[in-house]
Amino acid sequence: MAGSTYGTIFKITTWGESHGKAIGVVIDGCPAGLPLCENDIQRFLDRRKPGQTAYSTPRKESDEVQILSGVFEGKTTGTPISLLVENTSQRSHDYSQIASCYRPGHADYTFDRKYGFRDYRGGGRSSGRETIGRVAAGAVATLILKKMGIEFTTFTRSIGPISIQEENFDASFIFQTPTLMPDAVAGRQAEEYLKECMKNHDSAGGVIECRVTGLPIGLGDPVFEKLDANLAKALVSIGSVKAFEIGDGTLVSTLKGSENNDEFYMDNERIQKRTNHSGGTLGGISDGDTLLMRAYIKPTPSIFSPQQTVTSAGEEVTINIQGRHDPVIVPRAVVVVEAMAALTILDSLLLNMTSKLDSVVNFYNRKE
Amino acid sequence: MAGSTYGTIFKITTWGESHGKAIGVVIDGCPAGLPLCENDIQRFLDRRKPGQTAYSTPRKESDEVQILSGVFEGKTTGTPISLLVENTSQRSHDYSQIASCYRPGHADYTFDRKYGFRDYRGGGRSSGRETIGRVAAGAVATLILKKMGIEFTTFTRSIGPISIQEENFDASFIFQTPTLMPDAVAGRQAEEYLKECMKNHDSAGGVIECRVTGLPIGLGDPVFEKLDANLAKALVSIGSVKAFEIGDGTLVSTLKGSENNDEFYMDNERIQKRTNHSGGTLGGISDGDTLLMRAYIKPTPSIFSPQQTVTSAGEEVTINIQGRHDPVIVPRAVVVVEAMAALTILDSLLLNMTSKLDSVVNFYNRKE
Amino acid sequence: MAGSTYGTIFKITTWGESHGKAIGVVIDGCPAGLPLCENDIQRFLDRRKPGQTAYSTPRKESDEVQILSGVFEGKTTGTPISLLVENTSQRSHDYSQIASCYRPGHADYTFDRKYGFRDYRGGGRSSGRETIGRVAAGAVATLILKKMGIEFTTFTRSIGPISIQEENFDASFIFQTPTLMPDAVAGRQAEEYLKECMKNHDSAGGVIECRVTGLPIGLGDPVFEKLDANLAKALVSIGSVKAFEIGDGTLVSTLKGSENNDEFYMDNERIQKRTNHSGGTLGGISDGDTLLMRAYIKPTPSIFSPQQTVTSAGEEVTINIQGRHDPVIVPRAVVVVEAMAALTILDSLLLNMTSKLDSVVNFYNRKE
Amino acid sequence: MAGSTYGTIFKITTWGESHGKAIGVVIDGCPAGLPLCENDIQRFLDRRKPGQTAYSTPRKESDEVQILSGVFEGKTTGTPISLLVENTSQRSHDYSQIASCYRPGHADYTFDRKYGFRDYRGGGRSSGRETIGRVAAGAVATLILKKMGIEFTTFTRSIGPISIQEENFDASFIFQTPTLMPDAVAGRQAEEYLKECMKNHDSAGGVIECRVTGLPIGLGDPVFEKLDANLAKALVSIGSVKAFEIGDGTLVSTLKGSENNDEFYMDNERIQKRTNHSGGTLGGISDGDTLLMRAYIKPTPSIFSPQQTVTSAGEEVTINIQGRHDPVIVPRAVVVVEAMAALTILDSLLLNMTSKLDSVVNFYNRKE
Repeated sequence: MAGSTYGTIFKITTWGESHGKAIGVVIDGCPAGLPLCENDIQRFLDRRKPGQTAYSTPRKESDEVQILSGVFEGKTTGTPISLLVENTSQRSHDYSQIASCYRPGHADYTFDRKYGFRDYRGGGRSSGRETIGRVAAGAVATLILKKMGIEFTTFTRSIGPISIQEENFDASFIFQTPTLMPDAVAGRQAEEYLKECMKNHDSAGGVIECRVTGLPIGLGDPVFEKLDANLAKALVSIGSVKAFEIGDGTLVSTLKGSENNDEFYMDNERIQKRTNHSGGTLGGISDGDTLLMRAYIKPTPSIFSPQQTVTSAGEEVTINIQGRHDPVIVPRAVVVVEAMAALTILDSLLLNMTSKLDSVVNFYNRKE
Repeated sequence: MAGSTYGTIFKITTWGESHGKAIGVVIDGCPAGLPLCENDIQRFLDRRKPGQTAYSTPRKESDEVQILSGVFEGKTTGTPISLLVENTSQRSHDYSQIASCYRPGHADYTFDRKYGFRDYRGGGRSSGRETIGRVAAGAVATLILKKMGIEFTTFTRSIGPISIQEENFDASFIFQTPTLMPDAVAGRQAEEYLKECMKNHDSAGGVIECRVTGLPIGLGDPVFEKLDANLAKALVSIGSVKAFEIGDGTLVSTLKGSENNDEFYMDNERIQKRTNHSGGTLGGISDGDTLLMRAYIKPTPSIFSPQQTVTSAGEEVTINIQGRHDPVIVPRAVVVVEAMAALTILDSLLLNMTSKLDSVVNFYNRKE
Repeated sequence: MAGSTYGTIFKITTWGESHGKAIGVVIDGCPAGLPLCENDIQRFLDRRKPGQTAYSTPRKESDEVQILSGVFEGKTTGTPISLLVENTSQRSHDYSQIASCYRPGHADYTFDRKYGFRDYRGGGRSSGRETIGRVAAGAVATLILKKMGIEFTTFTRSIGPISIQEENFDASFIFQTPTLMPDAVAGRQAEEYLKECMKNHDSAGGVIECRVTGLPIGLGDPVFEKLDANLAKALVSIGSVKAFEIGDGTLVSTLKGSENNDEFYMDNERIQKRTNHSGGTLGGISDGDTLLMRAYIKPTPSIFSPQQTVTSAGEEVTINIQGRHDPVIVPRAVVVVEAMAALTILDSLLLNMTSKLDSVVNFYNRKE
Repeated sequence: MAGSTYGTIFKITTWGESHGKAIGVVIDGCPAGLPLCENDIQRFLDRRKPGQTAYSTPRKESDEVQILSGVFEGKTTGTPISLLVENTSQRSHDYSQIASCYRPGHADYTFDRKYGFRDYRGGGRSSGRETIGRVAAGAVATLILKKMGIEFTTFTRSIGPISIQEENFDASFIFQTPTLMPDAVAGRQAEEYLKECMKNHDSAGGVIECRVTGLPIGLGDPVFEKLDANLAKALVSIGSVKAFEIGDGTLVSTLKGSENNDEFYMDNERIQKRTNHSGGTLGGISDGDTLLMRAYIKPTPSIFSPQQTVTSAGEEVTINIQGRHDPVIVPRAVVVVEAMAALTILDSLLLNMTSKLDSVVNFYNRKE
């Protein structure tokens, strides 16, 4: 199992290597009747496009998406939606060094040992370009969720040691800065930090936060298919993510029950929680409050300083990575986090329709 | 989908509520030929039994496991292994208060809304007793992994603000203290902290760490089925876990690439990493190094102070939780984390056998 | 993968060997709110109980089902329903002969080779008792389907060369005869045929037909998850089934398009098919007409005449099968066919709820 | 779930409509190291190409396959293999009639009702062109199986009432005749029959048989994942298949146990069956003998005589189907049956590697 399929009802299958002919995704199980055109998806893809700021790789990738199936007269038909992006700008430069060397922090070594050999041009299947399929499918998922009033706010929470301040939070800043931080002050500091990193031929990590509003109560299932468990898998499956949090996350380990419990109260005939330490789930099931999760991203492993490593033949060598690499991937990964969250939530939402017998019976008795 | 099945090849299905007749698990896909008896599983279950220390609920649960199928003449046969534990000591006391109230921090509210009603005796399906099936199945998984030299060291890393010190780490302490901390000094401090919590009718959270040695290289698949992604789901699917880390975890977001990359070198003809910031995976695939993960556990939501909440009918009320509850669940959850890690690793290991065509061809040509 | 789990949303996992302590099934994903008690299931199980007629094994198996979880105050809660039947009447007689011999027509040989050894008492996992779990789960599925007006008529179509005549068809006969044939004349002839078989220490096969009415249009998905494809798997997965038909089945291969096409017409504002050669599906999707399928059952392999075979050590021997065996399993398998059909249809029905975006949006917007 | 993914380890996802831009398949989980080029796949695809004989549609479809990912330096890498065929020759003629009419025997009606509307150009997703993805993936599966000595002989067994005679069977004829019948006499008679059908503006059905040799013992799992159950699903999932048989198939229902049991004997130190009524499986597990299965195909529903039907608006109309349609699809479907059988067998073979603990332990201990 190469593990390229995700989801139970809204199921996506991604394919493609960074230096192959193309990259794509097949979406199976999309409900019929969604208006969809290339532009709807392109807008999402453009959010991960490189070459847009001083802090991302200067590679130019136009990444234009084509819809090959599943849409007829402007609407989804219920059959698989095949989306394809050609790999137009991958330079066929000299890969002789990395063909035999294992780059520290990359998957070269483990791929070689698992499969016996690997596509050594760029990252192959474990390149960041792998996320194109996720983002294209995520665009479709968010369009569907929007119809039910479910909205995403996803942004850079921190870069290196520079974190946003909650009191400065202003979502309107997100798309106005190269860092995608909703805090103008922190954003400027982060830019300084990145410039320093680049000057030192080094790279930075950071934290991405995703907030989702408008969720119905009841998404997620007890035990193994908890909504937060699936979100954890979704986000940690993104290359470079090393930690996942929901709600107060790591902080809860130091709190007391009296501090961490969210009390219920009535607000205008509706049940509400006074606080949201839980981050929007109770017992793994959405509680109607804002869903809040975070992904911790490691610094880009491709740095421009010499590093010690070994070759596949077992020789110790010094490697000097060439090429065009992002000093930080966090801003470009924001839309990937949003896409994975949307795919996971949509699948939970579709699966949840059968939780009550009454709903099922009404559904079919209503139909004719 | 109620979400009670886990795994692709080594697949488990758990069932049972805290106050039903019994709780159990069916293990399907266990390879044939493993010597297995009740005692092998009981040893694991006893690690989560309550009533063993001053810091766990005084409820007595004997939790004796029975093997109902899948074992013949002392060995697994390849057919489903059905394991059952009777619920002998659940008191049928008065549930009238919690039957209609939503306890803060519990799943009462979300279950009611998802399913239309719920088993209000204890936590029902979302009780901590749900983990019995996970632990019983995990016992079988660890026995298999042990045959390949794969070993687990799982322990309490912190309780509330009290954390172990790496320099004091001594694994032999783990099973000698009620906290399961491998640091005698921190263990005593944690006990003091817990006593204080109990005096204040409050509860504590903490962190569990799991280290796995002896893993082959190659477990986990690129993209969605990364080993760390599946471990994230496995651990966050345990009730009360709010964050997951692999390797340096949240810390990586503040490091630079030059600090976080693990350089390779040759040690006695074998490729090794000089450091293990990655925590044993590269590109989502095991790299042969120690696999290191952590789960952050929230404080027990059942506390003995009055709390504000609402009833299912929408009345605001004050709730005073009665009964026997753990002031901290971290020590009892240690074996649950180990079980979930073992189940996930074993499934990856079985799935990995088909990664190379040569291995497949040799397997069948060797057979006859 | 031992293959004991079936279904995507309404998912069942069966376990147990013929001579183990018990046999059971876990139903996961049953919608909450279905009234359910042991009797509802027992009625179904009694339909497969042996010892009821002259033409089934005289073994007495009381096969009393217990509900261990998932039902609270008389209704399903949405959590796993664990059902268990104890193996009370399995005689521990002498198995020394079949322990080492491969019985012709049985799975002894293939189990031994696949797993390295086997539970040789009775058929172990491949015994007919394996179907208890299917039937118990099927009972729950039919109760749900009944709420939507979906009804099953399942019966013996033929035994050996004796087949019912369509013009004599009378469903009220089915439960009045030991053969479960809806044709009194054919039923009597079949009884004569079976008596002859028994006198000759031989056994008979036959055909089971299942007709389902009241199905909504739209169940089943294009391509691999066609409704008829899943029914084919469901029925052929029952031990001894060697052929599957839908609608006119094998006959269609000799028909012309003009004979086989079902023309549409309007009947009282509703679209109807003038004939039902298709058997209720078009393009793998239910068309609202009666779903009609058949399973062809081989003669019981356990016969009381001497047979040539080999031992696991590779010696040629003559085997004389002892014990209590059905001269024909067809009547007892009728309820198994019905159960598998019901499980498959219910799962398709639950999966079909997400086919249209409008339905999904309305479902959630209606909810609050 | 639109049902376009098939397989557990060797998993394929097909996409595309008859009149969209392209049709394709993603193969995930293909073991690394298989030499693969476009030609290997093209040879298989050419076997289903139309326009090659007098008895298939005169449409010209070049159907040239492109490999877009998963192959590097001529070998599979273990990552998804994306295969694409452009839809070059679909005429954009006038679909106004079938856009609103439900063609008898087609999926028009059920698609409309399930999804709310449909791609009415040709059959859309339920067109025969859908099988291109299956065949392309099946080509890869057969290449892998061949490395283990597993070979397929698939052919037309009958067309209409004309069936091959076992005594005339000569596999070398298969690819020399337009009917793909391994019996020259029957082949000529079938051609006469087809000419007659065409003259009468009618169509014919038939039977396809697939024989597989060289299978290891042990493929398939007890209970739901029997090898024959999965083959049943695989073959019935092909459009127009209305019945499935394994071994003696429907015939067994009329046989006695003494006639149908296959006795074992020793042949040169190996266990063999004296007959093969079982068709190569016992208890759902391959027994090492020739696997033999059959698919019964209905006559092409598109016929050139007027038919009564209704429009989506509920008006009764007469339809005269235009265009280019096969008078019989059996010969073109032969390779589709072979592909589905190969995919199913390969997946069972990969899943079977974990049945014995010893094999698993040896696999990993051997590795380093």
